[in-house]
Amino acid sequence: MVEVRDKLFMIDCGEGTQAQLRRSKIRFNKIGHIFISHLHGDHCFGLIGMISTFGLLGRTAKLNIYATAALGPMLQSQLDMFCYNLGYEVVFHPIDTTQQAVIYEDRSLTVTTIPLEHRVPTCGFLFREKPTAPHIRREKIDFYHIPTWQIANIKAGADWTTEEGKVIPNQQLVYPAKTPRSYAYCSDTRYIARLHEQLKGVTTLYHESTYGDDNVAMAEKYFHSTARQAAQVAKDASVQQLVLGHYSSRYENECQLQDEAKTVFENTVLAEENMVIQL
Amino acid sequence: MVEVRDKLFMIDCGEGTQAQLRRSKIRFNKIGHIFISHLHGDHCFGLIGMISTFGLLGRTAKLNIYATAALGPMLQSQLDMFCYNLGYEVVFHPIDTTQQAVIYEDRSLTVTTIPLEHRVPTCGFLFREKPTAPHIRREKIDFYHIPTWQIANIKAGADWTTEEGKVIPNQQLVYPAKTPRSYAYCSDTRYIARLHEQLKGVTTLYHESTYGDDNVAMAEKYFHSTARQAAQVAKDASVQQLVLGHYSSRYENECQLQDEAKTVFENTVLAEENMVIQL
Repeated sequence: MVEVRDKLFMIDCGEGTQAQLRRSKIRFNKIGHIFISHLHGDHCFGLIGMISTFGLLGRTAKLNIYATAALGPMLQSQLDMFCYNLGYEVVFHPIDTTQQAVIYEDRSLTVTTIPLEHRVPTCGFLFREKPTAPHIRREKIDFYHIPTWQIANIKAGADWTTEEGKVIPNQQLVYPAKTPRSYAYCSDTRYIARLHEQLKGVTTLYHESTYGDDNVAMAEKYFHSTARQAAQVAKDASVQQLVLGHYSSRYENECQLQDEAKTVFENTVLAEENMVIQL
Repeated sequence: MVEVRDKLFMIDCGEGTQAQLRRSKIRFNKIGHIFISHLHGDHCFGLIGMISTFGLLGRTAKLNIYATAALGPMLQSQLDMFCYNLGYEVVFHPIDTTQQAVIYEDRSLTVTTIPLEHRVPTCGFLFREKPTAPHIRREKIDFYHIPTWQIANIKAGADWTTEEGKVIPNQQLVYPAKTPRSYAYCSDTRYIARLHEQLKGVTTLYHESTYGDDNVAMAEKYFHSTARQAAQVAKDASVQQLVLGHYSSRYENECQLQDEAKTVFENTVLAEENMVIQL
């Protein structure tokens, strides 16, 4: 779940997601958009149950679902059979998993597809905050007697010329805006050597690491990645933080995966259930 | 889950069933038959995830699913999309929810549909053990020198005539067989005044009791039953034991439902998660 300015965006929806939401005390009504990376059961079997429960709870707000086109008819026949008197609209947005494309945009955010390589059509999702305006330095505005109607220009980057003709550079009038944050979700995929090109400098990268160095062949065979490969992507993209996840159940203790990743990229953490990461 | 002589029969399969099976340490491979009472999500959304997981775990034994015909095409398209390389066969058996019919039979058991009345086509399931042969009284066989090849006749009810012409009645030669046990599952349904006719003398009746006396109108509106109505069915059918379940979440404490049922039928218990009842 990605939370941006009080909006919730869900990525993937395995069986039992609605039960997990309840345990996490997440408010169902804040979820407006669900992004499905690919049509394997552990990434989408929870969808119809959640949609159905939202209906029983009296939801009225539209729910947007983004997934590869093949899900459309399946979802529609499930809705027809199980949710024929749903009190809200489910809008299905087919996405092309082979292209980098903006599939969602609002005032503060874009979501772009990240083409991945798995056994079925798969893409990740890149959440990017839009740059915000810099913050006005109130005391400078007062000092130079800059009129209120000029504030928008100053925020947009204008300098200020005083009555005496002295030019005050913009950077003396504002505090710089916060650096926009970004989050990239990449699961499931085999290692893609050029993946980093789309991920340059993202704040936090989630990259699957199903296997460790002991199972490179398995990773290749099943189109998954090793922790070391995930770390290579993180390093090449110069991200700030790497989050590993989607571990094979053969690893009782995922520290092995973290250790291997850290030899390549130091700031690596292991995702675990109910973990919250502040960006 | 109904267990009969080491075979497991599942009734209904809501979301999260596979997780619940794991918690219960039930051996997945023993499940050969799944009976779906009706196509509401809380009774069938767990099916595809469970089928898929069985495949991942290497199942090879056939899995039989019994449900109203409408589930067939839906299940098939889910199998095509999510389980295209399943290592075992899923056999779908369409059932007519409006008729009493034997839909499963083996050496020790029959399963019969119980027509119910809900908002969509619905039936319950009646599990009946077949009568077993009586047990031979070894000491009598020896005493009368009855030859081994006559045992089958004795078990089948024959008397024995000694060489002196004395007739030994069958009941002196055998202990009576155990009374066959039976279990009836009735959910979801509104109260059906004649339902008891099919349930005469069953060992254990599970009957839904979504509401209490305080919500008779709700029960009527949504085609559910009150605990008192469930108890009336139990009483009219002279069952040995009534199990209530499928409680509305408005009841924090279901004792109210049990109390109301007990005023009509004394031997009433409340179903709860992971409860095991020995018949």
